[in-house]
Amino acid sequence: MSDTPAFVQRIPDGEDRLRDVCDTCGFINYVNPKIVVGSVVTWEDRILFCRRAIEPRKGFWTLPAGFMEEAETAEEGAAREAMEEACAHIEIEGLLACYSVPRISQVQLMYRARLVDPVIAPGPESTEVALLTWDEIPWSEIAFPSVKWALEHFARWRDGTATAPFANPPGGVYR
Amino acid sequence: MSDTPAFVQRIPDGEDRLRDVCDTCGFINYVNPKIVVGSVVTWEDRILFCRRAIEPRKGFWTLPAGFMEEAETAEEGAAREAMEEACAHIEIEGLLACYSVPRISQVQLMYRARLVDPVIAPGPESTEVALLTWDEIPWSEIAFPSVKWALEHFARWRDGTATAPFANPPGGVYR
Repeated sequence: MSDTPAFVQRIPDGEDRLRDVCDTCGFINYVNPKIVVGSVVTWEDRILFCRRAIEPRKGFWTLPAGFMEEAETAEEGAAREAMEEACAHIEIEGLLACYSVPRISQVQLMYRARLVDPVIAPGPESTEVALLTWDEIPWSEIAFPSVKWALEHFARWRDGTATAPFANPPGGVYR
Repeated sequence: MSDTPAFVQRIPDGEDRLRDVCDTCGFINYVNPKIVVGSVVTWEDRILFCRRAIEPRKGFWTLPAGFMEEAETAEEGAAREAMEEACAHIEIEGLLACYSVPRISQVQLMYRARLVDPVIAPGPESTEVALLTWDEIPWSEIAFPSVKWALEHFARWRDGTATAPFANPPGGVYR
């Protein structure tokens, strides 16, 4: 018994690019970008951070975010991730930014959200969670560029110097 | 020769939901929502429409949109779809709306864009393309609810009565 389909690379009829096609049954294995949903979660003047318990970037700080699942809305996914990673009950307020990371075929939808109550605790993917003021943000220990973008865009949104949604900053499209 | 992997449904270690897992090699087949990228494309006071040559909703009018591909940004995908469906060269201006359709596990990113020149023609997936004024829009022949949402949201954005991005309207989350 084979454990993988008998895929070959071929351009299907009516298309313009190579796909993995099964030579036996004709099944076309469309591979699509993946969606990450997350949020900048506030409690008064503080922002919710999680220290990563897992690779990549274990030990670094991030915003609650993760892969969107089937049969949920993007907003529900962002709220689910905050619950999973920080045991945080949040309310989504609006879309802050939509970033593309073509090198890893990812789209990141980052929302603004508020904590419904300040009860937080690390979930299985976090070693530590914290509510930090802007001055307390550990900029040298941030896990991913897009976490910095989201924080900077959130600050500009909050200051009223720009309106959401934001996209990748100049030079921020990794190919 | 088998044409499908030997998948069983199981909750992987450290997870909380059923996944298709290969009993032979342990491969986990994560299935994620798909991203549709499209745009409301304007030329002066007209909007670009395409009449669908393919199912679903063959013969109905839609906005240029389609599945995002790997290794492109969302904006590039929206521009590619306008070229494929309407031979239209467009310039993306900003994100108009982000809709979730959980029933079919889809996220739709709809951009505002402008035609660089008014040269349009039907691509393989369109039987007809048109630049229509607001009063000419064939509302009873629109292909999908989210096309109507995007048009209505675009009108509110253009009137200055609301700011982008928009999300699903009330009652508009199909489960």
